[in-house]
Amino acid sequence: MANYITVSYDTLFAFTKAVFTHIGCNDADAFAASKALLSADIRGIDSHGVARLSGYIRLWQAGRVNATPHIQIIHETPSTATIDADGALGLVAAQQAMQLAIKKAKQCGTGWVAVGNSNHFGIAGYHAMLALEHDMIGIAMTNASALVAPTFGKEKMLGTNPIAVAIPAKTQPPFVADFATTTAANGKLEILQRKNEDTPFGWVQSADGTPSTDAHILKKNGALLPLGSDREHGSHKGYALGSIVDIFSAVFSGASYGPWAPPFPAYIPMPEDMPGTGLGHFIGAIRIDAFRPADAFLMHMDRWISRFRNTTPIDAQQPVIIPGDPERLMEAERLQHGIPIIETVMNDLNALATSLQLKPLSV
Amino acid sequence: MANYITVSYDTLFAFTKAVFTHIGCNDADAFAASKALLSADIRGIDSHGVARLSGYIRLWQAGRVNATPHIQIIHETPSTATIDADGALGLVAAQQAMQLAIKKAKQCGTGWVAVGNSNHFGIAGYHAMLALEHDMIGIAMTNASALVAPTFGKEKMLGTNPIAVAIPAKTQPPFVADFATTTAANGKLEILQRKNEDTPFGWVQSADGTPSTDAHILKKNGALLPLGSDREHGSHKGYALGSIVDIFSAVFSGASYGPWAPPFPAYIPMPEDMPGTGLGHFIGAIRIDAFRPADAFLMHMDRWISRFRNTTPIDAQQPVIIPGDPERLMEAERLQHGIPIIETVMNDLNALATSLQLKPLSV
Repeated sequence: MANYITVSYDTLFAFTKAVFTHIGCNDADAFAASKALLSADIRGIDSHGVARLSGYIRLWQAGRVNATPHIQIIHETPSTATIDADGALGLVAAQQAMQLAIKKAKQCGTGWVAVGNSNHFGIAGYHAMLALEHDMIGIAMTNASALVAPTFGKEKMLGTNPIAVAIPAKTQPPFVADFATTTAANGKLEILQRKNEDTPFGWVQSADGTPSTDAHILKKNGALLPLGSDREHGSHKGYALGSIVDIFSAVFSGASYGPWAPPFPAYIPMPEDMPGTGLGHFIGAIRIDAFRPADAFLMHMDRWISRFRNTTPIDAQQPVIIPGDPERLMEAERLQHGIPIIETVMNDLNALATSLQLKPLSV
Repeated sequence: MANYITVSYDTLFAFTKAVFTHIGCNDADAFAASKALLSADIRGIDSHGVARLSGYIRLWQAGRVNATPHIQIIHETPSTATIDADGALGLVAAQQAMQLAIKKAKQCGTGWVAVGNSNHFGIAGYHAMLALEHDMIGIAMTNASALVAPTFGKEKMLGTNPIAVAIPAKTQPPFVADFATTTAANGKLEILQRKNEDTPFGWVQSADGTPSTDAHILKKNGALLPLGSDREHGSHKGYALGSIVDIFSAVFSGASYGPWAPPFPAYIPMPEDMPGTGLGHFIGAIRIDAFRPADAFLMHMDRWISRFRNTTPIDAQQPVIIPGDPERLMEAERLQHGIPIIETVMNDLNALATSLQLKPLSV
């Protein structure tokens, strides 16, 4: 069994912010990047949080992340904009994009911002949820390094390309969907790798395109499968959905798309003949009073949520849940009792501290 | 084996338009409804075309479809609007919504229209593709009668709630995704029912929530499964996606949502305590020059499409396809050689003609 060390959110935040400050981020950006990154850890998506901090720093060391970017609007209509992130951390650029989308939604009802020349932005749900406090629905998606084979293909062509949609309610907690457009996200493979366990059929295929249960298959030229797993179970729908995310995030913004998306590991060379620059995101904000009075919308969301929560369950011990429920419960738990960090990640963070001449993470 | 009778598109169109005219639609509406309905037949989605014509007429006979609606805008911002369809055929109302979305996109970059108090609109792809000729991306979704159980539930709570996204390219044909947010659409069950065959596991569950392969299971209180089939293969993602379609289509517009969506078969009583009126749709249009110059966007879509088309295939005989390819090939074939109508549907159409004192479908 793996060992875990529990760290308080504040301790982890101070450490993370010190790391981002060290590479040259100004105070506001270091704060924003830490908030976005650690939202993954407190919401229980451990694969996307501090476990990736040293990966972000290696991208900076390789010159692929710009800690002092000049982020600017390069194209605009009343309800849309395109931002050149100038190689910024996606963690920072996506938040600026959402602020702009919110501003446009205030004027036009909706705001839509494509971000190019960016990097990984952490969990999509964090950025989408930023709209909630403005009485808006938030939408966030991003393309990512190619790990996924399209239906009938054996080549890796798409990232796990997540979509998040956050919708406020009146007395109920918000509806927050945040999911990769694959059957299983890469983080789930990493968990099985640590436990030396196989995946179920339908998550991955081997290099020649045959079904596989090997959790290490990506290192052997295998691929993740689109949501739906195989043609008979609708993988062409997951492939279409991942493609829409790729096009909205990268073709809109001038980022690099499909198999040319920049890799996250800094040691992997950049693809040749890239059709754009960096990764892309697509961010949207919709005013809740854009389609009907705000109070009617919120009241009906309450009714929608409570009706679905009360769906007759198959097993009385496992009620039907609303998207966002598990992450919200995890957030409450971890803010109070701390975040369990697996030993390998803890060692990685302290090695990072040493290499940057920062104080190690005190527990 | 089932018998098919091949009918030309023009013959089928004249017949369909005569039926819609008979119930009181004006010429423009009868034309628009026939175009939308038959787009399913020519694109090969036989379950959504003339096979449903008598179903639409029964809804009109039951007073649930208004052939002479007063469709009006009831809420508006610069980039959004809500339409009360006044009980119109969704086939007609969704097209008016797309015209309004296009008008708003011309002014604001994007236009988004929620439609309430509506009925079934045929295939989502038809409405989305209307934006293409205006150099826009089209988006269409709709809620529908509840046939789908959410993850962990045994109650039918959502419709097959399709999403369509149509994206133009320069020299390549457009990318047209159009898919139900379930593993398999109801039409696929109907095909198996006619052949007396079972479904694969992962398409449906029985009344108590256990996995089933019975193609007739919906008549036995069973349910369709969300895209992903089961929790282990991501059904919570399909459930989230179908929920987003339900909320955007019906909670935005004041239509009835979730298990309260009006049933398509006119003999099924309307649900009690409905939280809204009719079905809802959500329609969007995005100008291709809203995020970058139009020509750059179109050129990169060409590159995106040709790169994905050339993905290394698993089987050289089955290349990777682009969403919309099979339907476009089918359309070319059927416009030239006619549309095969299964004998039971032909008999149903001629019984409809007799009951309405119209000329039978001449072949």
